[in-house]
Amino acid sequence: MTPLRVGLAGLGTVGGTVARLLVENAALIERRAGRPVDLRRVASRTPKPGAELGAASFDTDLRSLQADDVDVVVELIGGETAAQEIVSGAIDAGRHVVTANKALLATSGEEIFEAAARKGVSVGFEASVAGGIPIVNALRTGLSANRLDAMAGIVNGTSNYILTAMEEDGADFATALADAQRLGYAEADPTFDVEGIDAAQKLAILAALAFDAQIDFEGVHVEGISAIDIEDIRYARELGFSIKHLAVARLADDGIEARVHPALVPESMLIAKVSGVMNAVMAHGDAVGPTLYVGPGAGGLPTASAVIADLVELARGTLAVARVATRRLPNLGIDQVICPHYLKIPAIDQPGVFADVADVLSRHEVSIEAVIQRPQAIRSGVEPWVPIIILTNDVSEAVVRDCVAELGGLDGVTGDIARIRVADLSAMMPPT
Amino acid sequence: MTPLRVGLAGLGTVGGTVARLLVENAALIERRAGRPVDLRRVASRTPKPGAELGAASFDTDLRSLQADDVDVVVELIGGETAAQEIVSGAIDAGRHVVTANKALLATSGEEIFEAAARKGVSVGFEASVAGGIPIVNALRTGLSANRLDAMAGIVNGTSNYILTAMEEDGADFATALADAQRLGYAEADPTFDVEGIDAAQKLAILAALAFDAQIDFEGVHVEGISAIDIEDIRYARELGFSIKHLAVARLADDGIEARVHPALVPESMLIAKVSGVMNAVMAHGDAVGPTLYVGPGAGGLPTASAVIADLVELARGTLAVARVATRRLPNLGIDQVICPHYLKIPAIDQPGVFADVADVLSRHEVSIEAVIQRPQAIRSGVEPWVPIIILTNDVSEAVVRDCVAELGGLDGVTGDIARIRVADLSAMMPPT
Repeated sequence: MTPLRVGLAGLGTVGGTVARLLVENAALIERRAGRPVDLRRVASRTPKPGAELGAASFDTDLRSLQADDVDVVVELIGGETAAQEIVSGAIDAGRHVVTANKALLATSGEEIFEAAARKGVSVGFEASVAGGIPIVNALRTGLSANRLDAMAGIVNGTSNYILTAMEEDGADFATALADAQRLGYAEADPTFDVEGIDAAQKLAILAALAFDAQIDFEGVHVEGISAIDIEDIRYARELGFSIKHLAVARLADDGIEARVHPALVPESMLIAKVSGVMNAVMAHGDAVGPTLYVGPGAGGLPTASAVIADLVELARGTLAVARVATRRLPNLGIDQVICPHYLKIPAIDQPGVFADVADVLSRHEVSIEAVIQRPQAIRSGVEPWVPIIILTNDVSEAVVRDCVAELGGLDGVTGDIARIRVADLSAMMPPT
Repeated sequence: MTPLRVGLAGLGTVGGTVARLLVENAALIERRAGRPVDLRRVASRTPKPGAELGAASFDTDLRSLQADDVDVVVELIGGETAAQEIVSGAIDAGRHVVTANKALLATSGEEIFEAAARKGVSVGFEASVAGGIPIVNALRTGLSANRLDAMAGIVNGTSNYILTAMEEDGADFATALADAQRLGYAEADPTFDVEGIDAAQKLAILAALAFDAQIDFEGVHVEGISAIDIEDIRYARELGFSIKHLAVARLADDGIEARVHPALVPESMLIAKVSGVMNAVMAHGDAVGPTLYVGPGAGGLPTASAVIADLVELARGTLAVARVATRRLPNLGIDQVICPHYLKIPAIDQPGVFADVADVLSRHEVSIEAVIQRPQAIRSGVEPWVPIIILTNDVSEAVVRDCVAELGGLDGVTGDIARIRVADLSAMMPPT
């Protein structure tokens, strides 16, 4: 049979693993694909002596992959400018593309899919979201009978590792981050992961696919986990919640809600139990109801598994041709979100303060679902204040913002008020 | 565009829902499929006045679906003989087939796939296992880069509903079963579900797909949940486990292990938290590592979602052509399984009995990992005995069988010994 001829750009962790698997598992992959999937050319600006490339040729010029003996270019160099050039060059030359590049797809996905549609080539991007979990495939085909209306996920393994370590080991954020860096789960500059940018890019890709809409990545509301205090995690637990870094998207009548932020998730929900570097995506469809997908979200092998799945589909001729989203829906913005909130209010331990707090909430018509306030003596250390923990009922962003501003101005309130949204996922997934 | 012309056999819950969705969601499905998916003919031995069939013709003769104006026959009548005739007839006539019929595939899948391969037609069977969860798609394509080596699942919603009700509400088996029947989760004759036959059929289909092997359905070890006592569930919980009805398959060097039975699952694992009629499948691949898929396992809408997903793939031309498993591997049988066991030994509450029990286990070189024995006074009711609960370490079937026989012969043991395997899924899925 005619082989599918692969040109591979990038020999980092994922690229090196893809090359190795294509060589080592050639027989298995041929059986699954129905024809050989041959690694023909590899290009990397930095040579990697010792990389297992089989019979493939190597070049430090990335443009070498535009040669005629390549059917599909696998882009695994990351970043945006050079990656964009490789991908555009490949599509213009009539080659299929497989990429794990979430940044590229989140910001330039539309142009890429349009160019691919014009050329009639496919763009595989299973590896760009949630590593080895075949979630793109599930959304593209497995759930194709459904009008998908909501999704929520834990799509950044670094943040989930840190939050899990804080919850399970009682580590503070800085210690958990340092551990994650030591173990290779976080970069030296962790901003991209812990501030939610990575998760927002993945959410933009998933939501575009699920809702068949062009998603304005800039419009995704993004908050990271760096402000989460170990105390918040303890209080949340006491109230029956885990704090998770969630990516949430909903299709509403008047647009799309897309947001990434820490959230209190009821411990009764499966996704609250997804720990460490595992990823999880919940997707809700009108026919299927709630579904959940869990697996390793990063790493050489899981990501390579997703890249090769796209190659197998290409070889079979079953990878859907790139489809340009048919509609652009307004991004509703965070102000449209209504949900319960967790508030931690640092207060002087004296009569009347709680009454003042309750009064502010009452005047804004915010109901209190739960309160925790401990006698000062129980608190260790030297803080001259006690935290008042309040779980509100459903409240809009505008109202909660006003409340927090007003609460901050009270005489008895001594510092910044922490607020964390409570995830209402009951429509997406029944409790366990 | 040329439509994909559908002939539908069966107008029960699933068939009726498929017909309705094809008519009501025609525009959405056409957008996903790239061309119309038209319901042309419907056949059902019993007419269903009021069923929403759009422009489709209706006939009580199932053979009417072999007409020339049908591209794919959707078989949703269930059972084996008539279903087999419809499916074989359709394939012989060069039609594609989509079926939800697990019994048919578990027992005659091989012939069906061989016939389809000869005719070059596709057989879609996403709906035959785990309802709306796109697990067949995940195994066929999403994880195609992997050598899959292990899977475990909760694939019978009826049994999971009953076990959940027993665990959460303290209901006994008979009460929980009656509830399930009242709610429509269990048939009047529940044997097929609660004795594990349904789960074994689904396991045979999944394992054949995952391991690319012909699976001898008769060789799957099958035990149901009817012998599970509410007391077992309470003791298991005390030891940190949930009792789940698991379908487990492993690819070993010398064959395939395939078994369906109740098992103690550590509460730290996600799958232990999958409750009610939800299904879940864990699949482990050498590249991706552990993955988990959760969703509704039955019901008209979730199953219809899976049926229509296959139709969309057919319309796109991306449904993999039926592939005959390339190898037949020996079924290792339950005697090859080594795992820890839970034993409940009814014993007279007098000195020396525990020593005799411990002696039997010791002579068979079975280590005791945990013991629960309560003073008799705590036990309510009139039983003249106390249960001794023992959690063993890894032990083979032969040894545990010998132990149980010998323990049953002890003077101080007053009745049948309950034994339940402990699931060792750590290789498949990291604890939460």
